[in-house]
Amino acid sequence: MRSTATGQPRTKPAEIRREELMDAAQALFLGKGFTETSVDEIVKGAGVAKGTYYVYFKTKDDVLAALRERFVARFLERLQTAADGHPPSDWIARFDRWIDAAVNTYLDERALHDLVFHQMRPTHDRLHQANPVVRDLEGLIAQGAQAGAWTADNAHLVAVMVFSAVHGAIDDAGESPGPSDRKRLVHAVQSFCRMGIGLPPAG
Amino acid sequence: MRSTATGQPRTKPAEIRREELMDAAQALFLGKGFTETSVDEIVKGAGVAKGTYYVYFKTKDDVLAALRERFVARFLERLQTAADGHPPSDWIARFDRWIDAAVNTYLDERALHDLVFHQMRPTHDRLHQANPVVRDLEGLIAQGAQAGAWTADNAHLVAVMVFSAVHGAIDDAGESPGPSDRKRLVHAVQSFCRMGIGLPPAG
Repeated sequence: MRSTATGQPRTKPAEIRREELMDAAQALFLGKGFTETSVDEIVKGAGVAKGTYYVYFKTKDDVLAALRERFVARFLERLQTAADGHPPSDWIARFDRWIDAAVNTYLDERALHDLVFHQMRPTHDRLHQANPVVRDLEGLIAQGAQAGAWTADNAHLVAVMVFSAVHGAIDDAGESPGPSDRKRLVHAVQSFCRMGIGLPPAG
Repeated sequence: MRSTATGQPRTKPAEIRREELMDAAQALFLGKGFTETSVDEIVKGAGVAKGTYYVYFKTKDDVLAALRERFVARFLERLQTAADGHPPSDWIARFDRWIDAAVNTYLDERALHDLVFHQMRPTHDRLHQANPVVRDLEGLIAQGAQAGAWTADNAHLVAVMVFSAVHGAIDDAGESPGPSDRKRLVHAVQSFCRMGIGLPPAG
């Protein structure tokens, strides 16, 4: 087969092909469920030949792992963009924005989050160790502490606790909180976490 | 069959029989795994007839649910006992002891915790809503705030965040931290959570 079902040229860059397969899989997993989706459906959704699928992925679990990686990368991107709205030395604003972006990104993408972390068990070694989002927060907390903006004797443990508090607060929020509920939630989480590192509550 | 395999009289109280089946199941689940354990082995371990098992449980999942319930009840008992070591009005000491007991009980029972929550997904509606341990903490936080010991505009959300911070810190701890590591962990968690509700860090 020299061309795909939708007539796209075979010369499409590999990275884009892979992304299209992932997009098709994500839509199907979210729509009808991971277990209920077949590779045939993913292939059809992406408009590629079945052989093309197997160039990139061996199993459906491989696709899910790729979606998880992409979810985390995009999450970190949004955190970075939020923090970059403030000068590097404005540590408190960067901390506030980190929490704001984390809460809102998570709430925006909850279905996807639940999908990609579906098969993860909430046991040790899984949620926190080597979690890139915790690592990102740990960097921010360590740097801010070094700059004297706040106190954190153990930046890693504090990052784990802030991340967990944020995550717990979001898990506890209703299915799709409206704008004012979100705002209240962000404010409460910011205040608790700010005070946890010796800052005054959010203004 | 008029008597059990170990010759125990049929007149043994139902509650004790049930507990013995649970104890046998727990030991087997922890030792060889939930999936790998058969009902026959549980029955043999408890020294009862198979029919007796089915008086109390329909499936292995029922046993696991009963073990989960017992885990939570015993967890709450330990928290209660810890808090009862202090006068009802000494809110800060009760808060400190709550965290201390939560960290240590969890670390003592981590394998059991992971077993009974094995099949729970870390998504919303599961970890926090209707979690009796969060409810217990929420009562403490609301009462302490009412007494003026600390600040918590939204006792439920603060309880969720404290619980999540405690849980996250423990998940992050190594496989079996020694006494001094445990002490440091308790101290760091107490300080973060104390400050989170406007108290000075742990002494």
